Amino acid sequence: MSLTTEQAYSDLLSETREAALLESCGAVLGWDEQTYMPVGGAEHRSNQLALLAGLAHEKATAPRVGELLQHLESTRDVPADSVMSANIREIRRDYNRATRLPKSLVEEMSKTTSLSQQAWVSARKNRDFAQFLPWLEKVTRLKREVAQAIGYGQGVPYDALLDEYEPGMTAADVTTLFEALKADLVPLIAQVRDSGRQPRREILTRRYPIPAQQQFSIAAAEAIGFNFQQGRLDVAHHPFCSGFGPGDCRLTTRYNEQHFPGAFFGTLHEAGHGMYEQGLDPALWGSPVGRACSLAIHESQSRMWENLVGRSQSFWKWLYPKARETFPEALGQTPLDEFYFAINDVQPSFIRVEADEATYNLHILLRFDMERPLISGDLAPADVPGMWNELSHKYLGITPPHDSEGCLQDIHWSAGLVGYFPTYSLGNMVASQLFEAAHRDLGDLSSQFARGEFQPLHQWLTTKVHRLGRKYPALELVERVTGEPLSHRPLIRHLQHKLGALYGI
Amino acid sequence: MSLTTEQAYSDLLSETREAALLESCGAVLGWDEQTYMPVGGAEHRSNQLALLAGLAHEKATAPRVGELLQHLESTRDVPADSVMSANIREIRRDYNRATRLPKSLVEEMSKTTSLSQQAWVSARKNRDFAQFLPWLEKVTRLKREVAQAIGYGQGVPYDALLDEYEPGMTAADVTTLFEALKADLVPLIAQVRDSGRQPRREILTRRYPIPAQQQFSIAAAEAIGFNFQQGRLDVAHHPFCSGFGPGDCRLTTRYNEQHFPGAFFGTLHEAGHGMYEQGLDPALWGSPVGRACSLAIHESQSRMWENLVGRSQSFWKWLYPKARETFPEALGQTPLDEFYFAINDVQPSFIRVEADEATYNLHILLRFDMERPLISGDLAPADVPGMWNELSHKYLGITPPHDSEGCLQDIHWSAGLVGYFPTYSLGNMVASQLFEAAHRDLGDLSSQFARGEFQPLHQWLTTKVHRLGRKYPALELVERVTGEPLSHRPLIRHLQHKLGALYGI
Repeated sequence: MSLTTEQAYSDLLSETREAALLESCGAVLGWDEQTYMPVGGAEHRSNQLALLAGLAHEKATAPRVGELLQHLESTRDVPADSVMSANIREIRRDYNRATRLPKSLVEEMSKTTSLSQQAWVSARKNRDFAQFLPWLEKVTRLKREVAQAIGYGQGVPYDALLDEYEPGMTAADVTTLFEALKADLVPLIAQVRDSGRQPRREILTRRYPIPAQQQFSIAAAEAIGFNFQQGRLDVAHHPFCSGFGPGDCRLTTRYNEQHFPGAFFGTLHEAGHGMYEQGLDPALWGSPVGRACSLAIHESQSRMWENLVGRSQSFWKWLYPKARETFPEALGQTPLDEFYFAINDVQPSFIRVEADEATYNLHILLRFDMERPLISGDLAPADVPGMWNELSHKYLGITPPHDSEGCLQDIHWSAGLVGYFPTYSLGNMVASQLFEAAHRDLGDLSSQFARGEFQPLHQWLTTKVHRLGRKYPALELVERVTGEPLSHRPLIRHLQHKLGALYGI
Repeated sequence: MSLTTEQAYSDLLSETREAALLESCGAVLGWDEQTYMPVGGAEHRSNQLALLAGLAHEKATAPRVGELLQHLESTRDVPADSVMSANIREIRRDYNRATRLPKSLVEEMSKTTSLSQQAWVSARKNRDFAQFLPWLEKVTRLKREVAQAIGYGQGVPYDALLDEYEPGMTAADVTTLFEALKADLVPLIAQVRDSGRQPRREILTRRYPIPAQQQFSIAAAEAIGFNFQQGRLDVAHHPFCSGFGPGDCRLTTRYNEQHFPGAFFGTLHEAGHGMYEQGLDPALWGSPVGRACSLAIHESQSRMWENLVGRSQSFWKWLYPKARETFPEALGQTPLDEFYFAINDVQPSFIRVEADEATYNLHILLRFDMERPLISGDLAPADVPGMWNELSHKYLGITPPHDSEGCLQDIHWSAGLVGYFPTYSLGNMVASQLFEAAHRDLGDLSSQFARGEFQPLHQWLTTKVHRLGRKYPALELVERVTGEPLSHRPLIRHLQHKLGALYGI
């Protein structure tokens, strides 16, 4: 090849951009499937999505991509610490992962997880783990094969799976962080339990009319900075955020007239994801540096707006008068303090997605403790319910009454998403650490929130995190922005501060 | 090639099925663009659609398709008058059209029309033709290029465009039918005008609350046979129907609290299109015989349900009690006869989609008279508003107050749909001719409608028209089903019968 570096790089980016465009078409179809598609459209939709996924995979693994990468890797013209060098590094990573998986394994995984999710829905409904067991066995076997195909250097097979969601992190890194978190978190939650205090929980299950919830949630998402000229909020059974590309990011939530926090904090959470997508550099769209850094960084954004902002006292100093106007029947007679305590209720519970800020992380520790032996072969799928219940008792002090409130509650394993759970708690840690740094840079955030000013924090995140996309690996990004390696301490400090005041501990 | 005929045919169908799947992905994105997409997503969407259009075009023009066609065309194993022979004939037709269009032109057209539609929305809103003019110029130039690339034998360039929507018909065929229609229709409309009678028009512009309109329209569409398990109704600026594939067909409409007929008859109209899509043979999806025959046949279905059923006296004998219940404020004191006269008001007006059954066709004659010179080059895009207003005066006796009620009212040209309009009036003719034949086969349809029974007509259309898809060309299909060549006379008979009674002429 007698290509210039510039030309080779430009050719490489058009290849990745075409693959990304195809994936983004699939994202539109996937969003529609979850929001508006009539039931009769399911089979045709799966045919459409399979074709798009196949074409995107074909583009991403084209030999031409490999040739261009080799050409660029052998030249000395690529400036260090540049967008270009980061893009080459990340395209190489994606290319290696994609080309190491045999097509037959990809297809079998896709077919298996599609059927396995159906079996999971039914098993969960029937509280019948035995019905799901053969599928869990098959998915586990295939994920082990995936790990072997991708490789994991000197590490453990689980590393190859974790790396899909959290590039560069290993099970050992996560274990170190999680052990430290556990050591501080478990006693803190015990203190809460032993404090004898608890909020008036029924405040949140009064009547909150759905149209009012919709308006209220949209107004709040807009106030914190989600741009509705470039996005929407719709209803879906399982809430998610999907960034289609520059100028178009879709949020979803679900409403329950008798449960205020679900839709409201769900919307703030998804808006946090959405603001990350909206903050990516549109000029780099279709290349890795124009993409989100990792799932933990993504989750740090959603958690920050949901919890560190949305469940803070100052946020409600600003918004509570409006909440009382919007929901006079439910909140007209309730003082702010009682409402604020209710939305920060800490109490062990069975279902992860309904857990509070503090105990949520114990749900993740439990899953992480099970996924590693499951992939290494030390835990047989048949022994999953027993180990789940044992760990639930150990971490949360409670034992699920049946598997649908235990090991059958999450879709992840049935969908082949093994190695995904840790990113949720990593995201919580990243959120707190970034938030402390923002506090240092921006002065007193609380008084800003109490005035309804979110633009400084939003702007800070856009500049420090969003715009950088995938330029640096997640751990490096956190260290560059905050000046410290990632640690569990800011999360613990945040919880101690908030729960200390509420529970008098 | 040593392929068997069976194998070659099966390979050919997988090729067309993949192209159709890609097109159907584009249909989902196009639907979303018109219904839910935030304004900021326009540019990215146009990139997505251009890529899909380009890939579909690549598939449709693959040399392999040409080879398989040649193989099948040279064998004697293909039974005459079979689905197979029809599919081969139609795939050849599509292949010839597609291979004559350079990929660059297809992609430019797709990208241009996506942006141009956004410009049209804004221009129409601002009543500002100048804003739309550069896009009309660009689209016109591209459509002329398309006509040249496709070719038009001894005919005129417009034939090449018309042929896309109405395979086999030429501008000369249309002119003959339209001249005959004009000769009978213009005097009939003059008689109506001179009758001195007119309905109480304000009946239809009372307050019809939008949520009630929504429910009422959906219930009516369901009653005539549209299957909402396999479809939806949403809101769009310019109502349309889009069949994504088996089990998924989307209708759209628009609501105006002070105008009952717009959304209601619009919904019946789109439901008629939708029932055609839902009546196609799902086993043949992705092949021509699994597709609608032509736009005139498509329009015959929408017009039949909108006008011949939905504006009939017997239909309202059945539905009017329910209408009074649903809109007590607007209709509580209005007798059925007055309502029935109002929804069949014949009066020249500006907006095509709101025009009555009779004058509607004059709107089409106007557009047909403009499209031909626009494509031949005898009409400059800048002169469109002037010629529009002149023809409006000539045919309808009225001049639009501004371009949004004139040449900016329709989405078609902005979307590159040139040669499309004539199919609407052809559809009106086909509808009346099919309806007369259904009457002969099924006995008194009126008394069925008065009892809310639409299943016999729906079933008859499914068997005689929908299931056949593209097996026969449109004019042949009409002749096979009705025993007569297509004529304007059934339409005129229908109008004379209905308007005779209402206007005493």
